[in-house]
Amino acid sequence: MGSGEFDLIARYFAPLAGSDGPAYGLSDDAAILSPPAGYDLIFTKDALVADVHFFSDDPADLVAQKALRVNLSDLAAMGAKPLGYLLALSLPKNMNEIESWVSDFTAGLKKDQDQFGWSLFGGDTVSTSGPLTLSVTAIGTVTKGTALRRSGAKVGEGIYVSGTLGDGALGLKCLKDNIDSPSLIKRYHLPTPRLTLGQKLFGIASSVLDISDGLAGDIAHICGLSGLGASIESKLIPVSDAAGKILESFPAYNDLIWNGGDDYELLFTAPDHMAEKIKDISASLMLPLTKIGHMTDKLEVVILDDKGKNLLQGQRGFRHF
Amino acid sequence: MGSGEFDLIARYFAPLAGSDGPAYGLSDDAAILSPPAGYDLIFTKDALVADVHFFSDDPADLVAQKALRVNLSDLAAMGAKPLGYLLALSLPKNMNEIESWVSDFTAGLKKDQDQFGWSLFGGDTVSTSGPLTLSVTAIGTVTKGTALRRSGAKVGEGIYVSGTLGDGALGLKCLKDNIDSPSLIKRYHLPTPRLTLGQKLFGIASSVLDISDGLAGDIAHICGLSGLGASIESKLIPVSDAAGKILESFPAYNDLIWNGGDDYELLFTAPDHMAEKIKDISASLMLPLTKIGHMTDKLEVVILDDKGKNLLQGQRGFRHF
Repeated sequence: MGSGEFDLIARYFAPLAGSDGPAYGLSDDAAILSPPAGYDLIFTKDALVADVHFFSDDPADLVAQKALRVNLSDLAAMGAKPLGYLLALSLPKNMNEIESWVSDFTAGLKKDQDQFGWSLFGGDTVSTSGPLTLSVTAIGTVTKGTALRRSGAKVGEGIYVSGTLGDGALGLKCLKDNIDSPSLIKRYHLPTPRLTLGQKLFGIASSVLDISDGLAGDIAHICGLSGLGASIESKLIPVSDAAGKILESFPAYNDLIWNGGDDYELLFTAPDHMAEKIKDISASLMLPLTKIGHMTDKLEVVILDDKGKNLLQGQRGFRHF
Repeated sequence: MGSGEFDLIARYFAPLAGSDGPAYGLSDDAAILSPPAGYDLIFTKDALVADVHFFSDDPADLVAQKALRVNLSDLAAMGAKPLGYLLALSLPKNMNEIESWVSDFTAGLKKDQDQFGWSLFGGDTVSTSGPLTLSVTAIGTVTKGTALRRSGAKVGEGIYVSGTLGDGALGLKCLKDNIDSPSLIKRYHLPTPRLTLGQKLFGIASSVLDISDGLAGDIAHICGLSGLGASIESKLIPVSDAAGKILESFPAYNDLIWNGGDDYELLFTAPDHMAEKIKDISASLMLPLTKIGHMTDKLEVVILDDKGKNLLQGQRGFRHF
């Protein structure tokens, strides 16, 4: 890739940094941040590879928004407010119409910068013989000492999820199988990071994470860190109307509800006396918060059907480190 | 790639985070940092792709160290002290002997964590159909308000470089052409980030950057940001004995001295009355700091030979944004 193309990229990215932001319009190779007093900083990093985490021919603005949102979801799970992000972009050497792609991609970044109130702190652009690859490092803030953690669940506490599960994974199935379901496909392309919910859970939830790999795999993280197990009733897992409709036609997809990943809803545990507060938060955010089970002292995760049979096959999604 | 292999990776990476560090042994998907009072934070990010920035069959520990060091060099150019880093690793789906590679790779990370006094804050591991790709986000600290910048050079100021130039690019040539020069090849594999030098340049240098793309391209960044030009005398550019020897046999490689990249030396400008202080720093660090030219008001970069001919061909290296 010639230096001219990198100049092009710089021209599209520099406006996202803002000349008065910590990255000084990307003129230096680094950003300088005076951390706000009284806050902790949260760092998280997720990489996305074309045809693993998104399709090469997905609209570039949606790829940009998804890359930001999976990271924003990690911030949400810590109760953090987004501050800024760094972006590494590996562009295929043989990529066609690079200017138009970069223009759409940066338009997507801009949309989610405006929506979530953060900005570009810096990054790097390289060329690759492989698929388009993105890596985002997200930086957020929480009031000192109030970051939510994955550990801390206790026996008997309720297990809650926000929103509905399985939509992202079913959206992906619809895309692959050419099934017409715009709302599910949109949930796959554009997850909603539950930032406001995360910011309200301090002092209420004993452990929190965002569901990226699927409910079954992700509750196992909470169990592992707490030295506990989880018992979930499948009929309590909230499913959207659109997902319910697809599952009527394709019952074989049912396990995507807990094994599918790409939900980006928050999964949290809380003691029973917090139930009213959780209801209030749900009402104020107009977001369902559903109790789907409870923590146990048996070191295993079970998802039970109506007859008490464990539906889990022991499958697990990708692990992040 | 199965989840078992990702468990393996997690096992090798978790010890690098330290259970009492901000990443809590990587148990959460994010790190929590209480920023030290009185300091600014510096963020920088560089991506490396196999067979673009290093060879697929390079020893894994050297790949790890190079990935950290190119980022440490960016911190050095800001006058920062390393604090921590996040790492995204895209591993080829068909990779052989993954455990042995990851073991060597993490050993390389450990070596440079110990040498430079920083630690792993988090990251992500994904699989790719393309080449192995790394992205590192480095976080450093500087005393509030003392970060070095690329802008600020003034007409007549001296242009200085640390160490010797061209070694990295010539080392790469030696590797490719099977020329025996261990010291140059080592300079290519293991650049030395000039962290201590960077930390001493506040109040002395008017602009600083690290030479990653080659002297000619990088001085153009300083010129662009200052609205100035640069005049450099080729005979003043410091060259190592090993490089001098190779250039005697291969005079065609001569332009790698200013166009080659991979130097990771610091390039800075300073007014003449700082010359003594710069000599003192050079002596205390046992590191050559050589004046190679001066800033001009003609908006161009020239590198002059003995007869006053401009050696620059207008070539430029990759641009970072």
